[in-house]
Amino acid sequence: MTNRNVSVQPAAGRAVEDQEVEIVERKGLGHPDSICDGIAEAVSQALAQTYLDRVGKVLHYNTDETQLVAGNAAPAFGGGEVQEPIYLLIVGRATKEYEGTKIPAETIALEAARDYLQANFPHLDVGTDVIVDVRLGEGSGDLQTVFGEEGTVPMANDTSYGVGHAPLSETEEIVLNVERRLNGEYSDDNPAVGQDIKVMGKREGDRIDVTVAAAAVDAHVDGLDEYREVVAGVREFVGEVAGEYTDREVTVHVNTADDYDDGAIYLTTTGTSAEQGDDGSVGRGNRANGLITPNRPMSMEATSGKNPVNHIGKIYNLLSTEIAQSVVAEVDGIRQLQLRLLSQIGSPIDEPHVADATLITEDGVSVADIEDEVAAAIDEELANVTDITRRVIDGELSTF
Amino acid sequence: MTNRNVSVQPAAGRAVEDQEVEIVERKGLGHPDSICDGIAEAVSQALAQTYLDRVGKVLHYNTDETQLVAGNAAPAFGGGEVQEPIYLLIVGRATKEYEGTKIPAETIALEAARDYLQANFPHLDVGTDVIVDVRLGEGSGDLQTVFGEEGTVPMANDTSYGVGHAPLSETEEIVLNVERRLNGEYSDDNPAVGQDIKVMGKREGDRIDVTVAAAAVDAHVDGLDEYREVVAGVREFVGEVAGEYTDREVTVHVNTADDYDDGAIYLTTTGTSAEQGDDGSVGRGNRANGLITPNRPMSMEATSGKNPVNHIGKIYNLLSTEIAQSVVAEVDGIRQLQLRLLSQIGSPIDEPHVADATLITEDGVSVADIEDEVAAAIDEELANVTDITRRVIDGELSTF
Amino acid sequence: MTNRNVSVQPAAGRAVEDQEVEIVERKGLGHPDSICDGIAEAVSQALAQTYLDRVGKVLHYNTDETQLVAGNAAPAFGGGEVQEPIYLLIVGRATKEYEGTKIPAETIALEAARDYLQANFPHLDVGTDVIVDVRLGEGSGDLQTVFGEEGTVPMANDTSYGVGHAPLSETEEIVLNVERRLNGEYSDDNPAVGQDIKVMGKREGDRIDVTVAAAAVDAHVDGLDEYREVVAGVREFVGEVAGEYTDREVTVHVNTADDYDDGAIYLTTTGTSAEQGDDGSVGRGNRANGLITPNRPMSMEATSGKNPVNHIGKIYNLLSTEIAQSVVAEVDGIRQLQLRLLSQIGSPIDEPHVADATLITEDGVSVADIEDEVAAAIDEELANVTDITRRVIDGELSTF
Amino acid sequence: MTNRNVSVQPAAGRAVEDQEVEIVERKGLGHPDSICDGIAEAVSQALAQTYLDRVGKVLHYNTDETQLVAGNAAPAFGGGEVQEPIYLLIVGRATKEYEGTKIPAETIALEAARDYLQANFPHLDVGTDVIVDVRLGEGSGDLQTVFGEEGTVPMANDTSYGVGHAPLSETEEIVLNVERRLNGEYSDDNPAVGQDIKVMGKREGDRIDVTVAAAAVDAHVDGLDEYREVVAGVREFVGEVAGEYTDREVTVHVNTADDYDDGAIYLTTTGTSAEQGDDGSVGRGNRANGLITPNRPMSMEATSGKNPVNHIGKIYNLLSTEIAQSVVAEVDGIRQLQLRLLSQIGSPIDEPHVADATLITEDGVSVADIEDEVAAAIDEELANVTDITRRVIDGELSTF
Repeated sequence: MTNRNVSVQPAAGRAVEDQEVEIVERKGLGHPDSICDGIAEAVSQALAQTYLDRVGKVLHYNTDETQLVAGNAAPAFGGGEVQEPIYLLIVGRATKEYEGTKIPAETIALEAARDYLQANFPHLDVGTDVIVDVRLGEGSGDLQTVFGEEGTVPMANDTSYGVGHAPLSETEEIVLNVERRLNGEYSDDNPAVGQDIKVMGKREGDRIDVTVAAAAVDAHVDGLDEYREVVAGVREFVGEVAGEYTDREVTVHVNTADDYDDGAIYLTTTGTSAEQGDDGSVGRGNRANGLITPNRPMSMEATSGKNPVNHIGKIYNLLSTEIAQSVVAEVDGIRQLQLRLLSQIGSPIDEPHVADATLITEDGVSVADIEDEVAAAIDEELANVTDITRRVIDGELSTF
Repeated sequence: MTNRNVSVQPAAGRAVEDQEVEIVERKGLGHPDSICDGIAEAVSQALAQTYLDRVGKVLHYNTDETQLVAGNAAPAFGGGEVQEPIYLLIVGRATKEYEGTKIPAETIALEAARDYLQANFPHLDVGTDVIVDVRLGEGSGDLQTVFGEEGTVPMANDTSYGVGHAPLSETEEIVLNVERRLNGEYSDDNPAVGQDIKVMGKREGDRIDVTVAAAAVDAHVDGLDEYREVVAGVREFVGEVAGEYTDREVTVHVNTADDYDDGAIYLTTTGTSAEQGDDGSVGRGNRANGLITPNRPMSMEATSGKNPVNHIGKIYNLLSTEIAQSVVAEVDGIRQLQLRLLSQIGSPIDEPHVADATLITEDGVSVADIEDEVAAAIDEELANVTDITRRVIDGELSTF
Repeated sequence: MTNRNVSVQPAAGRAVEDQEVEIVERKGLGHPDSICDGIAEAVSQALAQTYLDRVGKVLHYNTDETQLVAGNAAPAFGGGEVQEPIYLLIVGRATKEYEGTKIPAETIALEAARDYLQANFPHLDVGTDVIVDVRLGEGSGDLQTVFGEEGTVPMANDTSYGVGHAPLSETEEIVLNVERRLNGEYSDDNPAVGQDIKVMGKREGDRIDVTVAAAAVDAHVDGLDEYREVVAGVREFVGEVAGEYTDREVTVHVNTADDYDDGAIYLTTTGTSAEQGDDGSVGRGNRANGLITPNRPMSMEATSGKNPVNHIGKIYNLLSTEIAQSVVAEVDGIRQLQLRLLSQIGSPIDEPHVADATLITEDGVSVADIEDEVAAAIDEELANVTDITRRVIDGELSTF
Repeated sequence: MTNRNVSVQPAAGRAVEDQEVEIVERKGLGHPDSICDGIAEAVSQALAQTYLDRVGKVLHYNTDETQLVAGNAAPAFGGGEVQEPIYLLIVGRATKEYEGTKIPAETIALEAARDYLQANFPHLDVGTDVIVDVRLGEGSGDLQTVFGEEGTVPMANDTSYGVGHAPLSETEEIVLNVERRLNGEYSDDNPAVGQDIKVMGKREGDRIDVTVAAAAVDAHVDGLDEYREVVAGVREFVGEVAGEYTDREVTVHVNTADDYDDGAIYLTTTGTSAEQGDDGSVGRGNRANGLITPNRPMSMEATSGKNPVNHIGKIYNLLSTEIAQSVVAEVDGIRQLQLRLLSQIGSPIDEPHVADATLITEDGVSVADIEDEVAAAIDEELANVTDITRRVIDGELSTF
């Protein structure tokens, strides 16, 4: 029988929702660190898919190290310009030849990065506002991992750790959704809102402060009055979004560093602070669940850009969150579930060394009531571990 | 009166030392991520000191983004060679002119990086085994912060978060000291041991596994037998060091990925895996206390390379650890103390918005017995916040 | 009266057309050196025009140093791919701020390079097949030269030298026109012919050998037979073109390094050998008149990318050719005219230190018959020296 | 019998020494273009020697494309500093593996560049004042040329052209020796004289103007008076050197762009203008004989950095000069000899397609008197063509 080492225990402390102070942060799509995460993962998906298409399996690669060097810009109402381009260096390893088939890893990476930037950053002219460079070393042939053969579950090649939780707290829901919806429906209708949106949520007792720094796009802002309207619009929208996730008292702050008298406002030409002074790199921002949650255990692992077939840290970080969500959806009575997975070198990755769930139940439910159900659900999810790989390659799972 | 918002409460959960599974990791001096941390911090110190020397105060800069692109090497018993050099790109911002005084930020950065590499990596030839490049943009004049004026405590310019704890658990002590002493006294006598040493400690109940991956330096290893002796020597030394910090059962594993039959061993020419395929960047490895501790709350903040005058995230991460250590040393009866500091934008940094200590006391001591003493000690330490800045510039505090 | 120091003398040797051996070469549009020349000049034009538009005069800049690092490609009948991208580094100096007006020199350069590549290289995907990077230092403010003020002729700031001749010899005409028309009308109808076309003409007595190396574009060539047809087509066309310029016996050689048995043919994916192993830089190929002519005096000056307002070497090389052509067109009886211009530091550029014409006249005409007419024509052309600057900025004059 | 196609004819025009205006230029050791030439050739020598040492023959490589991007410096009497480093990119191709033997081409290149810079530029701190980067692609295996096998003369793989002459004219001797001796004996005793020395000689009839631009080194110049002494010293020395080569009237100009009233002087920190605004690249300066001579036919070929085994352009340019010098030394009565070599694709390189000598004889000697002797001497020298290769690898022949 497969040994997944699942254990379910009551959590020792208070639920995050009950702690006095809770801090949650999300660096949005256009934050320089997130740009790097996004490119690293886009490059990874493109490489994985190319390997599948050409040789039928994913070969060794790792592209988790994009570096962004900020540019210089002169934003101006009605439309400014980038003075010195952003410089983006895609770094990593990739297998460039396999049994006679060549894989143009660097051109694939450049194309994936360009496509990603063009799809997500309408105000950024790739090639003039940003230079994309690449240095992909040759991946070691020894590390080539077979993927896609029937029934195979890869072996863990490292001791690595993943941690996830569900459900999100109210503050987490607010922070995550505020950014996603600002960068989704809201900016569709309001092109003056750029992609670099940073959201911090701070809950003290039952008061939640949501602080948003949102880059305005100068071509869509004709003057200071219009800028103030943009800020007011964001504030109102954020308030509405927050209200969907909590009944607590919410205060929204937008672009608090602005000083209208000094003319210091958050105006950009490209929609991202990368145009002026803010560098970025992979793995410095959001964790795999899209949030930075100092009240929760977090993994240091940079998930974006890693090979989803054999990088156990990537897989376990995504998987632990997925399992936690799925178990909470399936099993009634869970107030908070945290799942920790620790790999066992040399064992199949669906057989972790530790699969450790801690539970806080809802009133009237005890851990004993549901622990078997939870354990069974975890076990079942673990059995489908290779689904994670497939979904990552298909771009269905966000890594940041 | 100065309001430091210090609160002291009992911790909700179990002490880390009492948890069933504890994982601790340290990426040693020569790990690619640590090389980047070390260079970023060395550059930061050199810039800060230059600003002090030339204009009497630290000006705006931020150099927390070094990127390392791995090389290619052909290690061989008796001495191999680097085939393709490592590429190191120092990234950041720095003020290059202030009231007519020019600051050669890029040459300072290059010199600091070279000095750091030469001081710490005896087997790495700077200029041939590794290329050091630099891209430091112009720091914004608006952000220039006065430092060194009498009696001034800087204002927090961001909402940022730091967390520290004391004392270290046994496993933490072992992991930290094993790496430091291997890279200290041991390698002084054993030049065959390179700088790239990764240590993972895993405690399950009262059994501790210490897993060490230590790069051997080929010029000091004549053949496989000698390599095995190197590994055996490390294993013995690690066992001894571990024994100084615990009475628990310790098992030591060294270079477990070796396969002598296949000739797969951890042999390097330069003492670091950066020579062959392992990229690195700042803030991806150890936290400010030198460890990765998934059982503890951690900050995502990359501490190395940041400006120690005005970067509140850097200051609070270092400070929270310093205060925790100092309080534990001063006040009797503390089993575990965790301190969380949260800044208040626009307030002096010695007046955090939250200074939240959670305590687990030793048997026979209650939190109530010592909470005033703890609060007073924290308050006193906070009052000396600018000491942290000075010690960072002087290189007295490690950031990774 | 303006002193232009014009002298007209008989040439000492034989006309080039009468020499026993004549060698002429042209590196076509897609040769790596010409790509660099073309980009350097496109960047120069874009900068000059931007300065005119924004501050009403051309400021100091110099962009005569583009470096191309070849890529790696895997061409294949029907369509191959670039494995490792070409890397293009635009190097130079430019004024980035002038009396409060900012000039985004680097983004202008990137845009000009991209536009140039896209306009001229239909098979090259800018951004994936080629990375364009830029390093433009700050131009010295001291060197800012006023341009466009009424009636101003700039002063020569260097001792520099230009040399031109007219008319072209038959071999020169053939070499120049073969490349231009292959890269013009012929490739419009024959997309299988790429832009990298190198033409060498060698005349021995009355026999002319025209050797063409023309890159074929794999997407338009389905197999070896089709490739042979492409080669045959080029050979036929070149023979026809050559016949328009000479009655001498012409032999055409195309892609002589091909070895069909070995499968060694000149097949490319992008139409240029830069995709595979051939690096390039500015000023290494054609002289300002589009040719390399070892039988004639040549200037070493790299013309492309230099500032057409104040770079006397650029101006005199273009001007000497222009004047020679114009004089030959105006004055009857000239068989060969060579004009050498040498600047005088500190004098207006229309007053050269030496303006030295050597003449070979047609039968029945003596130098004495026409020397006054020639001198007057030269004098008049020199008076309009600033026209050259304007025409260069407008892109009317080719520099390579 | 070997067919070397040697022809000897009278020159058609006047000897350069008799022409009315003669211009000669030399870019000294520390000129940015010469720095690139020097590094390219040093890298070439190091690679060639490594191939000989490791595999017994020189493999395919070509390193003729170093690009220098100027830095920024703030020179100051008594010692200034480099603000932004010079960036040097070594570009080319090299064989990195041959029958199982690996060749660390990039680290060899970096080491050669560093050694060259340290040996020749005492005021330049390699690693801080200048960053040396490298991009050497993989050389094509197909182009691997056998070298060093007994009795082998390589085949020409291209139609290429070389031209040389002897003896040097007086102006040429002066220009060449002024720079060499300033950068030799004179700077040994006068460390205030930097390596970037540009010399232009202009002879009009019997008056020779020697214009020297010599960078002063700030650490060795305490003030303006001392600077004036440095300039005066150079002027005196140049006058003396010139007097050794001519009886004509010589006027020496040193640093004519200086303006003491404005404080505009040629002061540097590193001894080269590369520190501030002057970019450079290979093949843009001196021809293979060390001079730029617009009065003579010149080859456009960049000699430095090319493979001395199989690059026929490099070999013929060096060889034509060597042969001309040697013939002039052996055969009495030659006033001016120019030798042009044109290769024949597919023939051994000692059998050129054209070996064309033009002679001007001394009074009382006719071409007919010595043409057989000259032809025989040329033939003999051609027979020893492979000596050139060996001497280039050994660094005995300068290429710029």
